[in-house]
Amino acid sequence: MARLKRFRNLKSDNTTGFGTNSSSTGGRFVNKDGKANIVKRGVGILDRYSWYHTLLGMKRGKFLFLLLIIYISMNLLFAGVYYLIGIHHLAGVNTGSQWKNFTEVFFFSAQTFTTVGYGRISPVGFEASAVSTFEAFLGLLSFAIATGLFYGRFSRPQAFLRYSHNVLISPYKEGIALMFRLAPYKNNNLSEAEVQITMAITSEENGRLTDKFYTLDLEIKKVNALALSWTIVHPIVETSPLYGFTKEEIAATDIELLVFVKAFDEVFSNNVVSRTSYISSEIVWGAKFNMMYKPSQDMNKTILDMDKLNSYAMVPLPEIAVTETSMN
Amino acid sequence: MARLKRFRNLKSDNTTGFGTNSSSTGGRFVNKDGKANIVKRGVGILDRYSWYHTLLGMKRGKFLFLLLIIYISMNLLFAGVYYLIGIHHLAGVNTGSQWKNFTEVFFFSAQTFTTVGYGRISPVGFEASAVSTFEAFLGLLSFAIATGLFYGRFSRPQAFLRYSHNVLISPYKEGIALMFRLAPYKNNNLSEAEVQITMAITSEENGRLTDKFYTLDLEIKKVNALALSWTIVHPIVETSPLYGFTKEEIAATDIELLVFVKAFDEVFSNNVVSRTSYISSEIVWGAKFNMMYKPSQDMNKTILDMDKLNSYAMVPLPEIAVTETSMN
Amino acid sequence: MARLKRFRNLKSDNTTGFGTNSSSTGGRFVNKDGKANIVKRGVGILDRYSWYHTLLGMKRGKFLFLLLIIYISMNLLFAGVYYLIGIHHLAGVNTGSQWKNFTEVFFFSAQTFTTVGYGRISPVGFEASAVSTFEAFLGLLSFAIATGLFYGRFSRPQAFLRYSHNVLISPYKEGIALMFRLAPYKNNNLSEAEVQITMAITSEENGRLTDKFYTLDLEIKKVNALALSWTIVHPIVETSPLYGFTKEEIAATDIELLVFVKAFDEVFSNNVVSRTSYISSEIVWGAKFNMMYKPSQDMNKTILDMDKLNSYAMVPLPEIAVTETSMN
Amino acid sequence: MARLKRFRNLKSDNTTGFGTNSSSTGGRFVNKDGKANIVKRGVGILDRYSWYHTLLGMKRGKFLFLLLIIYISMNLLFAGVYYLIGIHHLAGVNTGSQWKNFTEVFFFSAQTFTTVGYGRISPVGFEASAVSTFEAFLGLLSFAIATGLFYGRFSRPQAFLRYSHNVLISPYKEGIALMFRLAPYKNNNLSEAEVQITMAITSEENGRLTDKFYTLDLEIKKVNALALSWTIVHPIVETSPLYGFTKEEIAATDIELLVFVKAFDEVFSNNVVSRTSYISSEIVWGAKFNMMYKPSQDMNKTILDMDKLNSYAMVPLPEIAVTETSMN
Repeated sequence: MARLKRFRNLKSDNTTGFGTNSSSTGGRFVNKDGKANIVKRGVGILDRYSWYHTLLGMKRGKFLFLLLIIYISMNLLFAGVYYLIGIHHLAGVNTGSQWKNFTEVFFFSAQTFTTVGYGRISPVGFEASAVSTFEAFLGLLSFAIATGLFYGRFSRPQAFLRYSHNVLISPYKEGIALMFRLAPYKNNNLSEAEVQITMAITSEENGRLTDKFYTLDLEIKKVNALALSWTIVHPIVETSPLYGFTKEEIAATDIELLVFVKAFDEVFSNNVVSRTSYISSEIVWGAKFNMMYKPSQDMNKTILDMDKLNSYAMVPLPEIAVTETSMN
Repeated sequence: MARLKRFRNLKSDNTTGFGTNSSSTGGRFVNKDGKANIVKRGVGILDRYSWYHTLLGMKRGKFLFLLLIIYISMNLLFAGVYYLIGIHHLAGVNTGSQWKNFTEVFFFSAQTFTTVGYGRISPVGFEASAVSTFEAFLGLLSFAIATGLFYGRFSRPQAFLRYSHNVLISPYKEGIALMFRLAPYKNNNLSEAEVQITMAITSEENGRLTDKFYTLDLEIKKVNALALSWTIVHPIVETSPLYGFTKEEIAATDIELLVFVKAFDEVFSNNVVSRTSYISSEIVWGAKFNMMYKPSQDMNKTILDMDKLNSYAMVPLPEIAVTETSMN
Repeated sequence: MARLKRFRNLKSDNTTGFGTNSSSTGGRFVNKDGKANIVKRGVGILDRYSWYHTLLGMKRGKFLFLLLIIYISMNLLFAGVYYLIGIHHLAGVNTGSQWKNFTEVFFFSAQTFTTVGYGRISPVGFEASAVSTFEAFLGLLSFAIATGLFYGRFSRPQAFLRYSHNVLISPYKEGIALMFRLAPYKNNNLSEAEVQITMAITSEENGRLTDKFYTLDLEIKKVNALALSWTIVHPIVETSPLYGFTKEEIAATDIELLVFVKAFDEVFSNNVVSRTSYISSEIVWGAKFNMMYKPSQDMNKTILDMDKLNSYAMVPLPEIAVTETSMN
Repeated sequence: MARLKRFRNLKSDNTTGFGTNSSSTGGRFVNKDGKANIVKRGVGILDRYSWYHTLLGMKRGKFLFLLLIIYISMNLLFAGVYYLIGIHHLAGVNTGSQWKNFTEVFFFSAQTFTTVGYGRISPVGFEASAVSTFEAFLGLLSFAIATGLFYGRFSRPQAFLRYSHNVLISPYKEGIALMFRLAPYKNNNLSEAEVQITMAITSEENGRLTDKFYTLDLEIKKVNALALSWTIVHPIVETSPLYGFTKEEIAATDIELLVFVKAFDEVFSNNVVSRTSYISSEIVWGAKFNMMYKPSQDMNKTILDMDKLNSYAMVPLPEIAVTETSMN
């Protein structure tokens, strides 16, 4: 890792919130989906999760399935209670086998929990009435909570951005630059988009492995509107921590690019945030992105083709004479 | 397009988020309603739209109609299921013709979906009871979602601004200025309003058509409170990309003014955003806006007349000696 | 109004959003409750009001009463429809006098609208069933909307600030200062509170009355936490537009102090805003606020006495030699 | 308190929002839970509390219990009304003892309030029908309000941070520093975390006790991501108000550290705020925090052990020669 000496003189960033002691951390810092690669211990399971954050982040299908499971469980529970109290306290039940009796009280429970209350079956006597009074209350509260969860889920600010799968090292002006591309894929309106890339690199210092973080300078770090695709460009010049790296050195080094995008969603009038991370093996040496938008046939609109987000062509890179003077 | 040379030396803005290659884009950049004039391809129909953004942006009547359609469809669907299970599993149905039978199960379905559950008709046996148990659950979830949508729709931050239909070139101090006007038309309180105008112009450069973007300097770009009308003024001085243009040149050139307004809504305590766009044909040469507010008769209030938002009078413009030295 | 010449050389603020032509506006700019004193014309009644903003700003009692009125009206309307369809299409009605019949269908309507659906009365036949199907749907949507309104109302960010009724001219260091006081009166946590005072004054210029606006310099314009009372202090020094005014001149001049407070509510994690306005007659010459907080008896807490918010004592003011040199 | 003279020349911060007159305030400024230690007087009980803020801040169990109490009270109230109207106006009641009769109307009330409406019991006649019509309306509104409260409670932005119980005086570079530690304990994503520490100290000035506030300089006051633990470091150098204090002096002085943390929650896209406070007795002289994270066994993740948040070891501190020149 001799070449890493090169950027020893660059000022590293110690405000990332990740430690610099390489032996204290394991694996990548940030997962591909943007979440920090950290596990928490020493907190009870109930305390460790914000159930609201968890339910908001859950996949739609899983969330709906969970609601259904809860609904069925609640009814099984209350059916059990009514069954224990005695089926004769429910007027109108068509009695029969134990199974038939249990299904009758289960359906009565559901009719109470949802407050549909047809009334063919109805509670008689104190115990059954009291339980159903409580169940109807609980049912309404449950749906109140579900309402809040639905609203929370779909009003949750999301950036709806897609990133190119790869980072390219492309020709740029007289030299080369690191580039990747992102584009909004939904009908949301993003403005004032801002990007920040932090490069994490494991470097040897005084015989100890330390993690160093560098904020990469970008050609453009903020755009007014994020309507089309946006190619983020980090010119690999002398002040870049990547300056002087060869294709082989990049592949051999433990590099991670932490990407952070912040934008303003004009429909929700709220800031949205998106994160991702690229590691060494996702960097393609000597390639160039293909254009991903073009005018429509009638020349009245611009068409953005999301399929081409990661479309690139291999190109030769210019020879760069690395100035060795910067390395003292 | 010879006169476009004039502003070749002005620094153009490359952070608009729109590309500069004129042959890659079609039509205007931003539609009159403020949305980017872009179509997306290569994303599935389900992925391309954020259904929440779509339902929030829908016109009120269309939204309510859609809810009604969904309600009727759900009931038709469940009525079909009950019908298949067999009408004799619903106690209390007044049987008759097939049509009559179907309407009975349809209404039973509606009574279940809304949880009104009169009980004249009620499910008997496992299948019908199970389906109605599920339908009541689905009904409540649907109304939970509808509740969220309603809240999302009416709490959605909106600027409620109207713009003058035209942009005027008016006399201003010793010279001329580009002016347009906006005003809030509802009883919302906007403060800290800020405006930004970006001019897009198609220009010839090295024989290739490129789109250039310029941020126009404004006399006042921020006001503390947006209570009355606000006339936005861009003085056409030497540093303006419009400096030296004649009436005919403006009409002949492909100019687009992208307007972006941001303000703070004091009721919602949220930023609201509004966009619009003007093209060459909407620019009126030699005109002046008429005052649109006056004191009330008792002198105790100020009256803002929204009808006069686009009211202007034609006026002669002063002769301006274009300094040719700035064009080298 | 000769003394107004004094501050002719001070830079006035033209970014208030209010015009400067005194003959175009009537009365005070901002009402005591912080709303702009403006009426809008030329917009239809439906367009002029954001009904959501209106319902959010309504007093609690009025809002609840409005909901009740709507509930009764809807039921009267639907009762009318059922009555027209014919009372014999509702099974279980206890018929009698016309009044009795109407009340029966009215209550049936309410049982449908709220989805309580006891079922003693139930619709029979297509028309009555179809109407009740629609009514139950409408009922649920209405309560969905009401849910959104309730949430919108109580989650609406509010500052809960009270202002001293008067503005005082008090002794301050060697000279005098304009002071008023504000305090939070509820158990909300405000931090990063910021205040801005704009003074509007009607001044004669070239024989024409114009409104001039001045931002007043404050001793402290931002505090970290707004837990106790906060006395806002504008020192009346040479750079103040009020410098050199006598008690009589203040009373005789058309002065308005526009107060704008912005703070961060830590429970809602949102900015809250509060406005008020003081006019000449509310300025008290030669007075000083009394302390409004003290330690509790056990010395373990601080007690803030809101009753003393406007409590002040008359005090003599120091003689100030007005430097006439600043007036050229 | 002679040593307090030392920092007399440092500029104190008068924008904390707390007064400086030590005899006007009692006890600590901020409680351990971050709330200001203030009681309000002179406001009616209804005005003094924002019930929404109160219900949002209530413990979960207490909140649910309160809802249940309200539900039972409402039903008792309405049961009373139906009982007064007369039980014979409710068809289907199984009459018996007074207690039995009352429970029957109580359960009928619950069936109305929740809109479950089985219909075994149903109102007959104007009075009972009118009351039940109103009760069903009130029931739905109550659940509308409950829905809003639930959503308000769980969407309420919270930082979910834990603080080390103690503040340490640790060796730092050549000298010493004040340190404490915080860590997020839930699965929320915090970024752009910022901390501010204000030290309050009671000092003698001209024979009068005054409270002085100092913003402490921090080694790092902002981190990009708050994923692991964060040790906040205030170097005790010459410009620090704590410079020159001995262990004994700290224990004997009335010092309070007001901690304010602000971060951006990426799921809610909202700023969250957290406060706490440390007093003299919580400061440990000569100690050092132990590492609280380490790589997982497979080296693929980082494990953060919350149990170690306050884990520290006693260490000797370097001798510091206090420069007396800074004290003139």
